[in-house]
Amino acid sequence: MTLSKDTKILIVGLGLIGGSYAEALTTLGYEVGAVTRRRETIDYALDRGLIAHGTTEVTPEYIGRFDLIVFALYPHVFLEWLRSYQDYIKRGALLTDVTGVKESVVYPVQEMLREDLEFIGAHPMAGRETSGVEYATREIFKGANYIVTPTSRNTKEAIESCKELGRILGFKRIMELSPKEHDEMIGFLSQLTHCIAVSLMVCKDSRELVAYTGDSFRDLTRIANINDEMWSELFLLNKKELLSQMDLFSEKFGELRRMIEEEDRSGMREMMKLSTERRGYFKE
Amino acid sequence: MTLSKDTKILIVGLGLIGGSYAEALTTLGYEVGAVTRRRETIDYALDRGLIAHGTTEVTPEYIGRFDLIVFALYPHVFLEWLRSYQDYIKRGALLTDVTGVKESVVYPVQEMLREDLEFIGAHPMAGRETSGVEYATREIFKGANYIVTPTSRNTKEAIESCKELGRILGFKRIMELSPKEHDEMIGFLSQLTHCIAVSLMVCKDSRELVAYTGDSFRDLTRIANINDEMWSELFLLNKKELLSQMDLFSEKFGELRRMIEEEDRSGMREMMKLSTERRGYFKE
Repeated sequence: MTLSKDTKILIVGLGLIGGSYAEALTTLGYEVGAVTRRRETIDYALDRGLIAHGTTEVTPEYIGRFDLIVFALYPHVFLEWLRSYQDYIKRGALLTDVTGVKESVVYPVQEMLREDLEFIGAHPMAGRETSGVEYATREIFKGANYIVTPTSRNTKEAIESCKELGRILGFKRIMELSPKEHDEMIGFLSQLTHCIAVSLMVCKDSRELVAYTGDSFRDLTRIANINDEMWSELFLLNKKELLSQMDLFSEKFGELRRMIEEEDRSGMREMMKLSTERRGYFKE
Repeated sequence: MTLSKDTKILIVGLGLIGGSYAEALTTLGYEVGAVTRRRETIDYALDRGLIAHGTTEVTPEYIGRFDLIVFALYPHVFLEWLRSYQDYIKRGALLTDVTGVKESVVYPVQEMLREDLEFIGAHPMAGRETSGVEYATREIFKGANYIVTPTSRNTKEAIESCKELGRILGFKRIMELSPKEHDEMIGFLSQLTHCIAVSLMVCKDSRELVAYTGDSFRDLTRIANINDEMWSELFLLNKKELLSQMDLFSEKFGELRRMIEEEDRSGMREMMKLSTERRGYFKE
């Protein structure tokens, strides 16, 4: 399947990300439909012109119309959906997703999928501290990364179509990683940082500290405002990788602790110099 | 000593903070002098009009002219300076500082000080990622906190003068804490967060990760760009408190790790809910 203006696109799950996909693609002139759980979500999206049509009923007639289907669901809901309804999908359609973990999603999906369908995993690294279609906007894709995670089962054509989708959505950088590389990267850069922020935030009832906080504490805990349902699922789906990243961090934190305890000033300074040097790779 | 337009103010140590004090006070019309190590620093400050006069030579004639002395030195240098030169100070002068730790500075200083002098500790919670007089500007005080840390040895008059100094420098909030309360607060909000940022930053040679980093990793590591000489000294001077804060964090981080390992989803969600609730105390 090659993306063209005639491609009919279905968004399954109209939350923040699904809604933002819908808005971007409708604005670009594609015919975008949606399936989601709540009728009010469909009404809202129709009212705002995010979609051309939509339904809460999953029927063969509706699902069978689409050439490209984007799944913007919680991972376990995504897998259940496919188990129940993949027979409704149009022959030869291309499927992709927006899930934040890849190994535990991409392989099971490709394993269970009908022979004539193709699934190519993608992770749009965009988001907000809020959720829901009311916050949907293609603005969140600006400056963000879009990662495509093909496997040996994917065709070149599907990989290209998926990258093209990222480009037309307005992502800054389109990258390709294996599901394993993706999960390792996300385990460190995103999941570990959320674990740190949450752990720091629950250390104390910080109400009386608010008056004293400068930027550093605020910076470190911004992501401690967290969607517990989604993140607990994502953590568990990347459990092995995340635990290993947490252990790596604990090891370094423990090293620093030991140096402070032993008053190993030169060791501390060396670690801080390395830290400063490496932070320098990040321009801002 | 009450602060008035006739008060002659000496800044000892013209770095980022000392220079910013000088700029603010000179602009307000005070006569500001400076003692610092390098001649170029004095020349720069004179050239930019940050000070009225200054010297690299610590003489009784020069030091003896001032009513209020602000020490903006590394803690151990501050203590050494007083040991060597406190005899030069004018009778009845008021001394204050800008040091980021308090118990290990305030008590030794008050213990060693001449009977006719008074030292009142203060911590202007302002700074930048850069150091040096070239970056000095009173802009860094805007929106920042100024904490006065009196002990039983301090007079009401000195406490008021010190608070007045914070006000005229342009700090947003002037607060009073005991040295112990200050160090506990700073150990958690500032030192622990720097320890976390440094530990995270040294986990990996992150050069190949730069392309993938979104805001969360950048936010958590902004302060990993760190002045190793100053921070290693501050950490060691607040060692007991910092170690206890580090242990508190490790305990929470370990709890989360165990929950992930045991797939205790409800425990994880509960912790994340608490984290989200507490982050809500911080408006931004």
